[in-house]
Parts: sequence; C-alpha cells; structure tokens
Amino acid sequence: MAKDIEAAAAAHEGGGYGAKDYTDPPPAPLIDAEELTKWSLYRAVIAEFVATLLFLYITVATVIGYKHQTDAAASGPDAACGGVGILGIAWAFGGMIFILVYCTAGVSGGHINPAVTFGLFLARKVSLVRALLYIVAQCLGAICGVGLVKGFQSAYYVRYGGGANELSAGYSKGTGLAAEIIGTFVLVYTVFSATDPKRSARDSHVPVLAPLPIGFAVFMVHLATIPITGTGINPARSLGAAVIYNNDQAWDDHWIFWVGPFIGAAIAAAYHQYVLRASATKLGSSASFSR
Amino acid sequence: MAKDIEAAAAAHEGGGYGAKDYTDPPPAPLIDAEELTKWSLYRAVIAEFVATLLFLYITVATVIGYKHQTDAAASGPDAACGGVGILGIAWAFGGMIFILVYCTAGVSGGHINPAVTFGLFLARKVSLVRALLYIVAQCLGAICGVGLVKGFQSAYYVRYGGGANELSAGYSKGTGLAAEIIGTFVLVYTVFSATDPKRSARDSHVPVLAPLPIGFAVFMVHLATIPITGTGINPARSLGAAVIYNNDQAWDDHWIFWVGPFIGAAIAAAYHQYVLRASATKLGSSASFSR
Amino acid sequence: MAKDIEAAAAAHEGGGYGAKDYTDPPPAPLIDAEELTKWSLYRAVIAEFVATLLFLYITVATVIGYKHQTDAAASGPDAACGGVGILGIAWAFGGMIFILVYCTAGVSGGHINPAVTFGLFLARKVSLVRALLYIVAQCLGAICGVGLVKGFQSAYYVRYGGGANELSAGYSKGTGLAAEIIGTFVLVYTVFSATDPKRSARDSHVPVLAPLPIGFAVFMVHLATIPITGTGINPARSLGAAVIYNNDQAWDDHWIFWVGPFIGAAIAAAYHQYVLRASATKLGSSASFSR
Amino acid sequence: MAKDIEAAAAAHEGGGYGAKDYTDPPPAPLIDAEELTKWSLYRAVIAEFVATLLFLYITVATVIGYKHQTDAAASGPDAACGGVGILGIAWAFGGMIFILVYCTAGVSGGHINPAVTFGLFLARKVSLVRALLYIVAQCLGAICGVGLVKGFQSAYYVRYGGGANELSAGYSKGTGLAAEIIGTFVLVYTVFSATDPKRSARDSHVPVLAPLPIGFAVFMVHLATIPITGTGINPARSLGAAVIYNNDQAWDDHWIFWVGPFIGAAIAAAYHQYVLRASATKLGSSASFSR
Repeated sequence: MAKDIEAAAAAHEGGGYGAKDYTDPPPAPLIDAEELTKWSLYRAVIAEFVATLLFLYITVATVIGYKHQTDAAASGPDAACGGVGILGIAWAFGGMIFILVYCTAGVSGGHINPAVTFGLFLARKVSLVRALLYIVAQCLGAICGVGLVKGFQSAYYVRYGGGANELSAGYSKGTGLAAEIIGTFVLVYTVFSATDPKRSARDSHVPVLAPLPIGFAVFMVHLATIPITGTGINPARSLGAAVIYNNDQAWDDHWIFWVGPFIGAAIAAAYHQYVLRASATKLGSSASFSR
Repeated sequence: MAKDIEAAAAAHEGGGYGAKDYTDPPPAPLIDAEELTKWSLYRAVIAEFVATLLFLYITVATVIGYKHQTDAAASGPDAACGGVGILGIAWAFGGMIFILVYCTAGVSGGHINPAVTFGLFLARKVSLVRALLYIVAQCLGAICGVGLVKGFQSAYYVRYGGGANELSAGYSKGTGLAAEIIGTFVLVYTVFSATDPKRSARDSHVPVLAPLPIGFAVFMVHLATIPITGTGINPARSLGAAVIYNNDQAWDDHWIFWVGPFIGAAIAAAYHQYVLRASATKLGSSASFSR
Repeated sequence: MAKDIEAAAAAHEGGGYGAKDYTDPPPAPLIDAEELTKWSLYRAVIAEFVATLLFLYITVATVIGYKHQTDAAASGPDAACGGVGILGIAWAFGGMIFILVYCTAGVSGGHINPAVTFGLFLARKVSLVRALLYIVAQCLGAICGVGLVKGFQSAYYVRYGGGANELSAGYSKGTGLAAEIIGTFVLVYTVFSATDPKRSARDSHVPVLAPLPIGFAVFMVHLATIPITGTGINPARSLGAAVIYNNDQAWDDHWIFWVGPFIGAAIAAAYHQYVLRASATKLGSSASFSR
Repeated sequence: MAKDIEAAAAAHEGGGYGAKDYTDPPPAPLIDAEELTKWSLYRAVIAEFVATLLFLYITVATVIGYKHQTDAAASGPDAACGGVGILGIAWAFGGMIFILVYCTAGVSGGHINPAVTFGLFLARKVSLVRALLYIVAQCLGAICGVGLVKGFQSAYYVRYGGGANELSAGYSKGTGLAAEIIGTFVLVYTVFSATDPKRSARDSHVPVLAPLPIGFAVFMVHLATIPITGTGINPARSLGAAVIYNNDQAWDDHWIFWVGPFIGAAIAAAYHQYVLRASATKLGSSASFSR
C-alpha cells in the first residue's frame, strides 16, 4: 500500500522543491486575545461540557447496570450471562467516543478528553487558553454525567464501585501507570494520524472518517486494560467518577490517571512531530540530494 | 482537530460577510398543499411503514429468541450462554437503525421513529402534514412488526414479556422518564449533527456516512438503559409492543415512552438551533467586529 | 434528512422535464452471446466460487468450533462462556459478507448468494446466463467450503450438526418459511438500496460503502432468526451444509431454504421497482402537473 | 452491482484500446539503492516496529486478562462471564489491525505482518530490501510488545499460556497448516482487493476505507480458527509470543506459523495477479475481438 500512496504523494511533490499539496497551519499562540471575543470559543466549550457529560452518563450507567445484572445472577443459573459483559462495557466507551467525536468535531474539535487536549496543545494545535477552558469543561461535564448515574441508580451506584478507576489487586502502581501511558499513546497517536493535514490533503474525507478509528482505539484499549486499572486514558472520566464516588482507594490511585495519560499524550505528540512528521522535511532534503 | 476544520471553514467564509458555502433550506411550511399531490410523499410514508415494521420484527424476535434460549439453559450448564445476550439485543436495535436509515434516507429521510420526526418538525425540516403521516405510518408499522413476532413465536411471546418497555423493579417513574429524555437526546443530537447543512457543505459525503453514527447512538443508549426501562427512545417501538402484548403494566408505564422521547427530542432541537447553530450567526458578526 | 436530500435532488432536476442526473442502465438481455466470449464473465464466476467457499469455510468453522467449546464446558464452570456465542456466529456471517462483497464487488458484483443473484436477475440487472453460472458457482463453492470444515473438524463436524439449516423444535414449516422470506427481504432490499443508480448519481461513493450495510443486514437477520431456522437466507449456504452433512432432517426441510429466499428476493425486487423506483417516474409527472 | 460498476469502467475505457483510467506502478526493484538513502524508508521501518509492538501489547494483554478473569470465575458463579470472551479477543486482533493500518498506511503502507509484506513483495509492490527491513522490524516489535505484557502481568502470563500459538488437542499438523494457509489467504486477498490501483481509479477513497475490511478480515479469521491454532496468520505475532513464552510445545509447532502464512500469502498474490488482474488484460483483448 505504502508505495502507491507515496507514489501519489510524490506526483504532487514533483512540481518542485517545496511544492507541497498541504500547508501546516501556523502554530496556535499561547494566548489569543481575539479568540476570547468569539462566540465560537464558548460554543466549543459548551459542546465539550455536554459531550463529556453524555460520555460519562452512558458509560458509567452501562458499568453499573452490568454489575447489577450479574450480581442478580447469583440467584439463578440462567442469569449468569445476563449483563452486557466487559465486552459491552468496552463497546460503550469506544462507541460513545465515536459518535461524540463525530458530533462535535466541527464545533470544538471533539476532544472530550483532557489528555487529547494536552497532546494537541503540545503540538500547538490549540491555544493555552482554549486548552484550559476545554479541560475545565470536560471535568465539570464528567462530574455531572456520573452524578446523573448516581441519581438514577442510587440503590446500586455505591455498591458496584461507582465506575471509578482503581488499580486491580495484584498490580503495582508502576504497572498501572505504564498501562495508562501506553493506552493513552494508542489513543492520541490515532488522533494525530487522523487529523494530520498532510493526510487531509491527500483525501479530504479524513475528517469525516476519523471518528471511527478514534472510537475503535478507545474500544481496544479498554479490552486490554480493564483488568489492570479499569482503563482511564481520560483524566476527566477518572476525576468525574472519583468525585462522585468519593472513596479513599479511588483517590489514592487518582494521580495515576492524570500523570499516565498526560505522559502518554506527550510521547504520542513527540513521536508524531519528531519521527513521523520530521520525516516529511527530511524527505524533501534527502530527495533533493539523492536525485 | 477543531482548529483545522475551523480554519478551512474560515477560508471559505473569507470572501466577505455572509459569503457562506452552504445555504439553510427555507423552513418547511406547516401545511404544504402541493406536497399532498406528490407521489413522493406517499412513497415516503410507505417506506417509513415498511422500515418500522422490519425494525420491530428483527429486534423483538431477537429479544424473544434470546430469552427462550437462556431460559432453556436452566436445564443444562452449557446452554447458559446460548443466547445473544443483552449485547446482542443492543446490536440488533442499533444495527437495524443503521441499515434502515441507510436504505430509506433517500426516500423518506429515514426517521423510523416519531421522536426523530418530532425533532425535525420542531426544527422546521418537515411539514406538519408530513410529520403526522410519518408518525401514523411508524406506529402502524411497529404494531405489524411485533404482530409478526407474536405469530411466529406464539409459544414464547407472552411468556417472555413481549418485548414491551416497562420500568424495571427498583426504579422510580422519574428515573425512567429522565433516562428516556437523555437517551433520546443522544439520538436526536446525533441526527441533527449528521444532517447539518453546514457540515454537508464541507463534506458532501455526510449523508452517506450519517447512518453509521445514528445506528451507534441507538446501540449505545440501549447498553446504558436496558436495565432501567428496556430502552424506548422510540414511541412507535414502545406502542407496537404494548398493543400486541396488551399487558396492564406495559400500559401503565406507557406515557413515559411518549413524553420522555418527545422532551428529549425537543431539547436536542433547541440545543442544536440555539446553541450550536446560533453560534454560526454570532460567529459571523463577532468575527466582523474582532477583525 | 429527507428534505435536504430531496432538495438537492430537485436542484439537479430543475433543469427541465426529464433532466435526470442519472441514467438507468438498459435491462440486461436474457441471453447475451457476446458476454459468453468475454473473460470477465468467467473471472466473475471464479470469484463467486472462491468467495462462497471462503464464506462457508469461515462461518461453519465458527459454528462447529463454538459448539465444541461450549460442550467441553460441561466439565468445568469456567469454560461455560468459552465460545464466541451466537453473537459471534452472527458476526461471522455478517462480517464475511461485508469483506467478500467489498473484495468481489468490482469483479462479479459480489452476490455470493443465489437469492441475491435471483433478485438482480428479476430486476434485469444480470442476464439469465450469468445468473445461472453464478448460482452453480455459488453452490459448488459452498459445498467445497463446508467440505473443508468437515475435513478439518472431522471429530466434531457430525456431532455438532454440521452447520446445517433445520427448523428448530416448536416451529411450524410455515413459520420457518415466513422467517426466511422476511430475512431475505431485508437483505435484498438493502442490496437494491445500496446499488440504486439514482443514489449513486447523488454520491459516487455508494459502491464503496455499500458492503457495510449489506454485511450488517446479514448480521441482523442472523440475530433474529438463528433460534427459528438457524438462518438460511442464502440457498447456497443451506445446500452446501446439507450436501456435506447429508442428514435426513436437513434434507426434509431443505426446500424451505430455496423457496423462502427466492420469494423474499422477488418481493424485495418488486418493492424496489414498483413502489420506490416507480415513484421516481410518477414524481416527474405529478411534479409537472402540480407546478 | 457488477453490471453498474463494469458499465462505469467500460465508459472510461471507451476512449480507445488501452485507454485505461489507471496505471499500474512499475514493479519495485529487488534492491533500490536510492531508497536506502531516504529517511522515508527508516521512518517506515520505525512505524512498522511501533505498530507491531502496540498490536501485540493490546492483543496479548486482552488474552491474558480474559483468561485470568474466567479462571477467577471458578470461585463464584457471577464471574463466569466476567471476561471479554473469545469474541472480545477476536475483536482485539481485528480492531487493532483496523486502527494500525489506518494510522500507518500513509507512512509505511500499514503491513504490520510479515505475511502481508511477503505477499506484496511477490507482487513486486515493495523492494526486497524494504521487505526484509519491515519483517525484522515487525518481529522485534512483536517481541517487545509481548515482553511488555509479561512485565505487566507477571503473575498470570506464564500460567495462562503466554498468548502463544499452538495446535489445539485433537487437530493434526496438516489441519493446522491448512487453517493457517486459508486464514492468511483471506487476509492477503482482502489487502490486494483494497489496494488494487484499478479500484482506486474508480474511487479515490479506497485507501481511506481499506483499513476497515482488512481489520474485519482478521476478526473473521480469528472467530473461525481460534479453536484450531489460536490463529496466527501473522508470523511476527507468533514469533513474539513464542520468544517471550519460550515453551517447548510452542516452539515445536512454530514452523506452522511461518510456512502456513507465507503459502497463503503467495496463493493470494497469485490469485490476484493471474486470475483477477490477468482478466483486465484479457478483457481488453477479448473486448476488441468481440466487437
């Protein structure tokens, strides 16, 4: 596959040194005073709040509902598989990211995750002000979303662990941190790949298709790391559940679910900028000397 | 992501104040006499009837078949996981909406749900006459679809609850109503996002891709709310099952499955029109003063 | 959604009476002598043979492997859910159709099912000669695919029912026939919707996206009708399993899996031609008198 | 479907003998000295290493976590369905291939599998040097990925079989080899279909959509062959698990997971080149004599 695609890219580049068919947008300023006067910023912050609220509501409701059903199973053999299972929980997280990124991509960029916002800030795709406002909105949205589940499922919410992220028994803090780093790397690497302007230039439909692999990345990471940490890879998700559940064990491990995702996002940003994209520049120069 | 997409949008808008690359269609009239003379209206009504019939037939058959199999499991341990599970039921609802929206989008718009029709009517996307005819067709189709399942599965249909929506034990009416409101909000918000003409202008393939996130929205809401109400978010689906099952408990709770979805759809329409789309207008004016 | 799409269609049609943006290809002749001289016909027949072989191999291997695992479960509680379940079987059928239609669409049209070929023949999309050659290739491919599974799984193939379609206990022949008719209607209706030239004219990417809803249609029908007939909706699939399994019960019910799918395909073809497409013509004339 | 698509293709070809709307890229040289001076080659090798590492990490972690959970189930009935099941494992393999092909398609071509690289080398799509470097990178990445899982899951890794591919009890070596050949054929056939330049010419979006059917092909093959060999179809995946697990049984069967996939890939390359693509040439000549 690579050859065909590179051949096509080369054809575009053939017009001359530096004749690229895409332009990197200029890096976002740290503080953009003009941005603060635009309604589009506040609209985006509202969209992030609503999307993160819906994300936590649907996913934590699935977790609690599933545990409620399997617990009831103790009373009869036919109900043992009554819940949606861990596979269903993984689908809930991945599927919600798919539809919410689809719905909010054109409004806010569809972050719904402070680690994604942090990675895009490091790559200078969003300003510092926007990044901070997004993260605050995401955390508030997550708290409200989990709060709704607690309100609806008051009889079961606390009994079934509140959807909070904790280290499972038998795993060290180092393992949990490493699992969160790699899991977030998979997610943010997919986000960077999907939104690379070089890619968009070759095919303008990437923004439309991007939500599907991003959702699948979340689905995959949940399959692998639910047994270890319950899977955070989204500090707003972990904070929302910790605030509403408010349990000592959840708070003790809570730093893992901020440090891990932020490190993972930073590595993904560096990998994309200094290995994959740097190559674009070096390709230009090496191509010129090798001709 | 947001920045790239907004940058692209800004480039299009750069031609001048109001130089938009899309046009909002004029609001649909309440009563369109000319529409009544067109075969395309009646063709659309037939398509809604057939699609809702198929939707209820496949989904309720999955529900009944699944319960039949897990019940039989009581007689042997190896059959305990014989059914498709709640995950399979959620797939049936979401997957059918995906394929039916895909098939009928070009004929009727692919509503297959009175709440969606109501939301699009509030946004003035369909006329009052069309909305009423669609809702009648959807309800009749749902009744016929569930009737087919009862005919095919006569031995099991009543024993396994008839696929009817009821409040689960331990949940208040308020919780059930709120769960239906939020669930329908997720669905109708996705429908509005997918069919936004501003989005279509940027990428003409949205109408083709739209069915997938809409189907996933239905899938997700089922994962989260099956334990609470069985998940309505579609009054025709709830009515069809209630009419054929004709059980007191199902009728007692039935109002929840009309009031909840209609409120959820109205909130989604308002959120889209007054928060997300209003911004488009305000963006134009604020952009002009901030330059 | 309908309104936007119709508005776009209307814009195209505005040029004048009969100014359509698509052309219906002429109906295929019953016997096309020229076609018989072309390598592309035989290439297509080979592709249908290979695709149907792979379809039956993967799906029947999943069925047998699943039953083997759940049976072993009787010896220990932890293996009770060891297999992929009926949900996994439904995915195997739907997912294989997705990838095989994707792979063979450009070579043979991606039928992989005599009922689909029959429906497209009724709509005059393929010649009689091509239809007959396809059906023979599909049936031979299916027999070879199931034969491979029997060869690989000799210890379990017969013990676990050979993947053959039979009426489940408790269902009448009429119910089984009706379930096959409706199931095949869902599939062939999706095929017609996905390949409608009117749709292609509005969006040229439909042929690429079509495999996904077609695969999902197969997935959905399996969820609903596995408890009733095991789900045929594909006479080649039923024949292949019956020939290799060669069991009296499978042969007694076998006519259901030819008559049902062919009736369902015929109804889908009629619905598409005389209700949905006829409207295109009538829309033209009624539009002209209502203006 | 075939007719429409062929008609469209014919329209393009109508301009004259040999007026194709696509050009086959020239075959890749065995050794391309210029290629070795380009950063894009080393960037691609790094991307293959990282992608295969992530692939093995996520999938083997899912396998081990799943077995740990179902094992714990022996202590209580409600946990019997606690794991993601074989269906979840099959999703992990297929879903990771989907997102990794999506992410690396533009950088390295997204092979992530020595059998895919071998098939594309046979078809002269990649040079010998590139193929060898890719295969080395894939194997090292796989070893590192499984090593991470062993580090994280030290308590469970060895106890639950290390994710290694072995022949299941009751199957002969010939059956295992044949299952690997057919499974790899399904995968590489899908890869060739998705990246055919003839297809791309008709629809330029194929490179974007290709990852989805390729991922589904991996998903399907796992459903069918997990009971037989655990499913290799990727020698790097089998090698990585064998090296880290380092168990006699795994090494004894290991040759099957190199010979089988390479034979399957070679057959898929031959089927595509000499049956499906050869037809393109013969179609041209037969068309000219039949006119």
